Amino acid sequence: MTRPVLIDTDPGCDDAVALVLALEHPDLEVVGLTTAHGNAPVSETTANTRGILELVDRADVPVAVGADRPQNVALETAEHIHGEGGIRGEVPAPTAATDPVDIHAAQFIVEQAHEHDGDLVLAAIAPLTNVALAHALEPNLPELLDELIIMGGAAFTQGNVTPLAEANFHSDPHAAQRVVRDCEPTIVGLDVTAQATFPPERLESLSRDDPLGLSVFEWLTYYDEATLERYGIESAAIHDALVIAELIDDDVLETASYPLTVGTDGDLARGALVPDARGSTDAPVNGRVALEADYDRFRAILGDSLERLLESGDAQPPR
Amino acid sequence: MTRPVLIDTDPGCDDAVALVLALEHPDLEVVGLTTAHGNAPVSETTANTRGILELVDRADVPVAVGADRPQNVALETAEHIHGEGGIRGEVPAPTAATDPVDIHAAQFIVEQAHEHDGDLVLAAIAPLTNVALAHALEPNLPELLDELIIMGGAAFTQGNVTPLAEANFHSDPHAAQRVVRDCEPTIVGLDVTAQATFPPERLESLSRDDPLGLSVFEWLTYYDEATLERYGIESAAIHDALVIAELIDDDVLETASYPLTVGTDGDLARGALVPDARGSTDAPVNGRVALEADYDRFRAILGDSLERLLESGDAQPPR
Amino acid sequence: MTRPVLIDTDPGCDDAVALVLALEHPDLEVVGLTTAHGNAPVSETTANTRGILELVDRADVPVAVGADRPQNVALETAEHIHGEGGIRGEVPAPTAATDPVDIHAAQFIVEQAHEHDGDLVLAAIAPLTNVALAHALEPNLPELLDELIIMGGAAFTQGNVTPLAEANFHSDPHAAQRVVRDCEPTIVGLDVTAQATFPPERLESLSRDDPLGLSVFEWLTYYDEATLERYGIESAAIHDALVIAELIDDDVLETASYPLTVGTDGDLARGALVPDARGSTDAPVNGRVALEADYDRFRAILGDSLERLLESGDAQPPR
Amino acid sequence: MTRPVLIDTDPGCDDAVALVLALEHPDLEVVGLTTAHGNAPVSETTANTRGILELVDRADVPVAVGADRPQNVALETAEHIHGEGGIRGEVPAPTAATDPVDIHAAQFIVEQAHEHDGDLVLAAIAPLTNVALAHALEPNLPELLDELIIMGGAAFTQGNVTPLAEANFHSDPHAAQRVVRDCEPTIVGLDVTAQATFPPERLESLSRDDPLGLSVFEWLTYYDEATLERYGIESAAIHDALVIAELIDDDVLETASYPLTVGTDGDLARGALVPDARGSTDAPVNGRVALEADYDRFRAILGDSLERLLESGDAQPPR
Ligand SMILES: [Ca+2]
Ligand SMILES: [Ca+2]
Ligand SMILES: [Ca+2]
Ligand SMILES: [Ca+2]
Repeated sequence: MTRPVLIDTDPGCDDAVALVLALEHPDLEVVGLTTAHGNAPVSETTANTRGILELVDRADVPVAVGADRPQNVALETAEHIHGEGGIRGEVPAPTAATDPVDIHAAQFIVEQAHEHDGDLVLAAIAPLTNVALAHALEPNLPELLDELIIMGGAAFTQGNVTPLAEANFHSDPHAAQRVVRDCEPTIVGLDVTAQATFPPERLESLSRDDPLGLSVFEWLTYYDEATLERYGIESAAIHDALVIAELIDDDVLETASYPLTVGTDGDLARGALVPDARGSTDAPVNGRVALEADYDRFRAILGDSLERLLESGDAQPPR
Repeated sequence: MTRPVLIDTDPGCDDAVALVLALEHPDLEVVGLTTAHGNAPVSETTANTRGILELVDRADVPVAVGADRPQNVALETAEHIHGEGGIRGEVPAPTAATDPVDIHAAQFIVEQAHEHDGDLVLAAIAPLTNVALAHALEPNLPELLDELIIMGGAAFTQGNVTPLAEANFHSDPHAAQRVVRDCEPTIVGLDVTAQATFPPERLESLSRDDPLGLSVFEWLTYYDEATLERYGIESAAIHDALVIAELIDDDVLETASYPLTVGTDGDLARGALVPDARGSTDAPVNGRVALEADYDRFRAILGDSLERLLESGDAQPPR
Repeated sequence: MTRPVLIDTDPGCDDAVALVLALEHPDLEVVGLTTAHGNAPVSETTANTRGILELVDRADVPVAVGADRPQNVALETAEHIHGEGGIRGEVPAPTAATDPVDIHAAQFIVEQAHEHDGDLVLAAIAPLTNVALAHALEPNLPELLDELIIMGGAAFTQGNVTPLAEANFHSDPHAAQRVVRDCEPTIVGLDVTAQATFPPERLESLSRDDPLGLSVFEWLTYYDEATLERYGIESAAIHDALVIAELIDDDVLETASYPLTVGTDGDLARGALVPDARGSTDAPVNGRVALEADYDRFRAILGDSLERLLESGDAQPPR
Repeated sequence: MTRPVLIDTDPGCDDAVALVLALEHPDLEVVGLTTAHGNAPVSETTANTRGILELVDRADVPVAVGADRPQNVALETAEHIHGEGGIRGEVPAPTAATDPVDIHAAQFIVEQAHEHDGDLVLAAIAPLTNVALAHALEPNLPELLDELIIMGGAAFTQGNVTPLAEANFHSDPHAAQRVVRDCEPTIVGLDVTAQATFPPERLESLSRDDPLGLSVFEWLTYYDEATLERYGIESAAIHDALVIAELIDDDVLETASYPLTVGTDGDLARGALVPDARGSTDAPVNGRVALEADYDRFRAILGDSLERLLESGDAQPPR
């Protein structure tokens, strides 16, 4: 049985890997993609999202454009990590085939949640602006979803933007605060994603001499040497793909539940995901945090999917 | 020529006066009412809004239900000021005649802004949650409106919730911060509304022995003795009605433009509307603040309208 | 009867005027000067303080060196206002005659407070770091003093560093917060000092062709054209001297008592002096704020003193 | 060769163990004790400090009374953990033999630092108010000390007051912020102290039927069942004693250096010790944090010392 999944995304190289994994995998049905500011301005992440759909011949998947800025803080993007325009590789410029739907991402999320009547998974792999807006428009969103799974935060480990904050949560701390507080999320943060690498030797066999193959290779190797060294890893962390792998096989991650809050005020606390692991406060348990990952399983799921994708004539027609 | 106006409201006694003034006055065309949390939970302010429309036989005006909570802070209501359920008087329970439209207040605001193509006035006389959401859904909102006029803030005077903050801005400081920063508002705050009273002697003649007359009397006298004494006034401040009066006659208020910001962090700064009147910062001018009011003009406009309303067979049919 | 006064100061042009007024006036006995960072680093404000004492032949007054930095925030100085080294005019380099005492300003304040047994006035016309430290060393400081009078804050008017903050309070907001909270101060802020100018025509007659006369003239005219225009005044505000004038004649200022707090967190609230004028909080009354000034009286006190000083052979011997 | 050590303390049961260890051990020379608010008000921690000195016949050690409150936040104490009056056991009421010296703890710290001319170790095992004051009085304090070693913070682990903050840092976050920023400390926090227990079976042999023996037993077992369970340990964590053990044998702890900051603003960040372990900021390395402890070594040092102490006729004469 396939799970219907809506992905809120800001491609972004690791988003791109996550998207092709979700689109390819037979156990998931991607019912739509909503776009957010994040790795680049939303106009560019939208173009990238549409280009990825066209690259894998999936113009049938609806796209809804989301927020162009965070709730309250100024827009921050990460082209220095993901490349000019927010993505590497040979992603084609979008055509009319992937014209976005006429409603805002937040409304699209609410509509799809109602439509799937409790079965929809919302995978949020970008700053949480759209999800917070969807919750503002529909406070019953958590009950309408089967699951909300988020890439974001650094619960028990160092952040990647500040010592306490991961990029998605730092980019819109107010949205993250609200979603974490009110939406019962499963949170997949740097505690597990910082090591979610795909070994370089496996990448060799995937490399292909066409736009999709070249793009996948670029997406999987988007860290430069300095970034690899900073995190002490040998290939880039494919953060967002770990969320999708967990949706395909829930043995990929182990989680624990906590009272969770997200900081909004001041440079130090901004975007910090803070679990109350010892009951210091009387806050209720409101979410789950991934603490352990089975990276072999993750790599097998991702590798198999990418192999199928790259060998498939349908997915990558000759040009 | 009538001006199309959409009112975002949280009745609230002064809201109720503002609404009947706007609905009665021939120079304004109320194209819809959107409801917000504020003086009471949004379920109650919606019921009050609908009840007011039924009380004045204006079930033709569409109502859209808005946000049930602020963006990030906890819900605060003010039944201790406005009475149980957020309103005084004999406001009837709503009937199906005023069933709300099927979209969120924020979407309704965006739709109406597009529909009126630059002519719409948005009068926001409640916490700014819906307006901030509308701006998030449609970043061109300021350009789509003729004017955004807000009751809120205390620019150069003491607040009424904290020393620096007025109730609407305090209730959702993050929404206020965004709207003030990005939406080029005209702000009508306590600097002028705290003295926008309606003299008790004039109230005598208005009192009538029917639900509308009784309600108007209750709305105009909603302050208790302690509140009157605290502010050093002889009758209640009808804050929200001053906004509507200014829309009817733009000689009611005098304004000045400033770089404006709204505090969000910490008890002290939360909801503070801070004009940079001496150019301490290099922030750009982004809004206007009302500094002076012609209260005689205000009272004449309001008194005349209420007299017309209460004498009109149409507005208040026998029951 | 003379009042013993200890002045905590950061000369600073207006400090210099305040010091010569206090040193000259027969009703005050300056028992010591403590120096603070502020208009310049403490090494320079100390040199300036000593130089001023030597300029007016008062090397008998002990000087104690104070804090070199604020409690928690980074050091800020104001040479762009007060001139290179923090002062204008012909202030001589200090000699051994004014070598500072061997204890910290904060300890000196505590010692003098004990020594004068309830009669000492502490006039703090600089960032409040030393006073906060003195209170930390001796929590009974308020009871040991006759009066603590402060130049600082902008209670009901715009600040001069940020819209909410005056320079002394902004420079060490944590010290200001503590002193205002715990030390029962009389606060003389921009509400009254921003207009405490000395008319240019009176300056003409004061000008003299010796270092003291030249210095006094420079100190009284330290604002440049842009600053004068910004504040809408015709000559420089001699903030600190207003504090001394009030000690000489308590009809100079009118004050009112409030619950007072000082903001410490965030750019907006930092250094804001916030009176709770309407009882929004249940905080107790903890200080007085000057609301009105008799500027004619101020100018007469200051002008008479400067005339006496500049005409006195003792105060300004031939060189 | 013995190391001269000055201990700033707030006994406190674990402080008491730390003090008797430091006083007993032949490698350390305790040159004085300064007292701070913390586990109880400073009047009580001073009485406890003096009582402990009398209990172990060390009235020769000078005591200086310190700050009665934090720099800016309100006083918090921990009698619910340490017992009524801040300590358990049979600590005698102090006599004139241990009357405090006549200067403030902060001045005493500065004096001793000068006196020992670079050789003094300052061990701060309480909220850092006194140390911050000492640094304010003498900005060269770090250069004047051989070492500043602090019990406080939770660098890479959960706090014990809030999820991010340990009690000493939470109690005076502004003092901690300054000391960590400017004083090059070695920080021994919950990362290592939370497991610094003394096994119950070893406690049996130490128990003695006199005030000192009884007190030591009470001090070593000050956690109640709920606290033991909360931290998942079998006997109480003797936090402060780990600092002293490291001074005796620097193989007890392993440390690493980081850029460190301490949060002051907002409930979430207050008192948080935040290492920038990945170079997210460009802040300089300013301190060391203990990451690993050799608990066997710690227990051997502490156990041997307590045995010597309890067996010594001098230290604990018959009564
Ligand atoms: Ca992403
Ligand atoms: Ca209202
Ligand atoms: Ca000054
Ligand atoms: Ca302690």
